[in-house]
Amino acid sequence: MINDNPGVALVAGGAGFIGSHLCRALIERGHEVLCIDNLQTARPSNLRTLEMLPGFTFVEGDVVNLLPDAVLRMADQITRVYNLACAASPPQYQADPEHTMLTNVVGTHHLLRLAERAGARFLLTSTSEVYGDPEMHPQTESYRGWVSCTGPRACYDEGKRAAEAMTFDYARMGRAEVRVARIFNTYGPHMSPDDGRVVSNLICQALSDRAITIHGDGSQTRSFCYVDDMVRGLIALMESEFDGLEPVNLGNPTELTVGDLCDRILALTGGSRDRVIFRPLPQDDPRRRRPDIARARDLLDWSPSIGLDEGLSATCDWFSRELGSPLPSLAAPARPN
Amino acid sequence: MINDNPGVALVAGGAGFIGSHLCRALIERGHEVLCIDNLQTARPSNLRTLEMLPGFTFVEGDVVNLLPDAVLRMADQITRVYNLACAASPPQYQADPEHTMLTNVVGTHHLLRLAERAGARFLLTSTSEVYGDPEMHPQTESYRGWVSCTGPRACYDEGKRAAEAMTFDYARMGRAEVRVARIFNTYGPHMSPDDGRVVSNLICQALSDRAITIHGDGSQTRSFCYVDDMVRGLIALMESEFDGLEPVNLGNPTELTVGDLCDRILALTGGSRDRVIFRPLPQDDPRRRRPDIARARDLLDWSPSIGLDEGLSATCDWFSRELGSPLPSLAAPARPN
Repeated sequence: MINDNPGVALVAGGAGFIGSHLCRALIERGHEVLCIDNLQTARPSNLRTLEMLPGFTFVEGDVVNLLPDAVLRMADQITRVYNLACAASPPQYQADPEHTMLTNVVGTHHLLRLAERAGARFLLTSTSEVYGDPEMHPQTESYRGWVSCTGPRACYDEGKRAAEAMTFDYARMGRAEVRVARIFNTYGPHMSPDDGRVVSNLICQALSDRAITIHGDGSQTRSFCYVDDMVRGLIALMESEFDGLEPVNLGNPTELTVGDLCDRILALTGGSRDRVIFRPLPQDDPRRRRPDIARARDLLDWSPSIGLDEGLSATCDWFSRELGSPLPSLAAPARPN
Repeated sequence: MINDNPGVALVAGGAGFIGSHLCRALIERGHEVLCIDNLQTARPSNLRTLEMLPGFTFVEGDVVNLLPDAVLRMADQITRVYNLACAASPPQYQADPEHTMLTNVVGTHHLLRLAERAGARFLLTSTSEVYGDPEMHPQTESYRGWVSCTGPRACYDEGKRAAEAMTFDYARMGRAEVRVARIFNTYGPHMSPDDGRVVSNLICQALSDRAITIHGDGSQTRSFCYVDDMVRGLIALMESEFDGLEPVNLGNPTELTVGDLCDRILALTGGSRDRVIFRPLPQDDPRRRRPDIARARDLLDWSPSIGLDEGLSATCDWFSRELGSPLPSLAAPARPN
C-alpha cells in the first residue's frame, strides 16, 4: 500500500547493506528519502544506484557529530527517522571501538532529538547482539541476555543496549514515538564482500580459489534472514500502531549450523569441501542464535517468506557478478524453498 | 603511606557523597585535588568543608560538556582521574534519564580523553547495578548480569555498562591505564537526606516523626559498606599494579534484609516499629545483592573493616546533627561490631 504523501524519511546509515535496500523500498512506497551516511562501510556502488532514484538525497555526515544543516533544514518535512547507523560486523566495529560506542549512543541521541524536533516517528535498528551468547533458546524479547560488558564485542553490544535504553526513555518521556527492532543475521545482495560476516565470507571464498574458513567446528548455529524480508519487517514495524515501548525481534527463525550453511553455499557455487579449513572461535562468539518472532507475527503480521536456498542463490548470483566469478551452471536456477 | 609528590588527582563528582570523602582522603595522601562537579546532587555543606582544605580546587562543570579550560590547563599535572560523576540513586538518576546516560557515556569519554592526554591513570566507579537483578549470588565479577535494557533503570545500569566497555577499550588500545570499580551500596555521613536511598531514607524518617517506608515486604537483601572502607578500596584499586583489564567489586559482603536494617536503625534512633509502612517494590528492583570480594582481597589486600553497627551509629549521629534531631541517649555510644 503506497501512501500518497508520506513525507521525508531520514535514513541514517542508508548507504550500507540493509540501509540501501531500505532506501529503495521507502522510495517505492512514495517517501522522499534523505540518507545520511559517513561512508564507513557503505559501498560506492550502492550509493550510485540509489542516487539515480528520484526523491533520493544523500548527505555525507557522521551522526556522532551534530547533524548537518542540510538535514536540520528539512526537519519540518521529516516524518520518519530510521537509525541504521553503525558498522555491524565484528572486524568493522572493533576497528574503532570508541567510534562504535559513540555512534550508538551519541548518534542515537542526535537522531532522537531530531525526531523530537520534527515530530517524526523514530526507529532504532538494535540487534540480536543485545542477547550476547544466549542461555535462552530461541530468544524472546523479554530475555535479558548474556552479554559481557568488558570484552571486545562490548562496544557494539553494550552500545546498542544503551541506545535502546535511551530510545525507550524518549518514548516514556513523551518526546518521540519510537520503534525498536532487534535485527538478527541478515544477508543478500549488496553486502560488502569484505565485511567479515559468515555469509559473505563463505560465498566470496567459495567463488574465489581461496581457502574456505569456518570458525570453530561449524556446529554453532545461526538463523539467516534475506534482506527483502528484513526491509519489509522494518517498514511494517515503523508503520505499526502500538505504544512502541517494547522491542521487536526481526529475523528468520530457520536455524542451521555454520557447517550446513557452508555445504549449501558450496553446492550453489560448485566449490569443494576440500578447501574448508577450521579456525579458532573469536572471543565471546555466540554458540546459538535464533529469534522467537511471535511478537512480530502478532503485532505486525510479519514473517519471512524467502527461504534459505532461494535467498542464497540470489546472493551467490549477485556476488558472482560483482566479483566476476561466474557460477557453475548447476547453481544457476534458484531452488525454491 | 603518603607519597611526597603524587601530583594532581582530578575527581569528577567530587562534591557528591563518596566523592567528597575521596577528595579529603586524597588530600591526606598528599595529592592536590581538582574537583569538577555539576552540583546536581552535591551538598553545598560538603563543598564548603572541602574548600577549606589546602590543595583543593573546585571547578563547576558538567562532564557531559567539553571539559572546562580550568581543567584542561592542568592536564600536564594530572596523574590520576577518578570518575565518580553520576547521580546514583534511582529517583535522582531517573529524573533526567537522558542526562544520566550521557553522563556515563559521554562524560566517561571526555575523562578518558583527558587521562590519555595527561598520561594519567583513570578509575571508573561502576556499580553493582551492572549485575541487575542477579540470578547468581553472591555476585562475582565474571557474572554477566540480569539487566533490563528497556526499563526505567536502564539509563543508569546500561550507561555504566557502556562506560565500562569504553574504559576497557581504552586500556586494550593502550590509550590509558584504567581501573574499574564496581561499587556496591555505600553509606555514611554526608549522604544527602533526600537522595532516596534506603539507608538515608530510613534514618531520616526514623529521626523525624514521619512514617518509615519499606518497599516490598522488607525481605529483599542488601549489603552496606561504610564510606571510609569504600574510599580506602578505591584508592587501593587506583594505586594497585595490575593490567586493569578486569573490574573489581568493592563492597561489604555482610548481607542483611531491608527489614533487619530498619530494625537496627530503629534501635539506634529510638524509633518505633509502629510507624513502619510497606509500599510496592519499584520496577526492576533487585531482590538480592552481595558482592563476592575475593578479587579485591587478592589484588588489593582489601576488605571492609567497619561493621554495620559502628557505621550506622556514626551515620545516625551525623544525620541527627545535620537534621537537628538529637538521638536518644541509648543510641549515643557506638556499639563495636
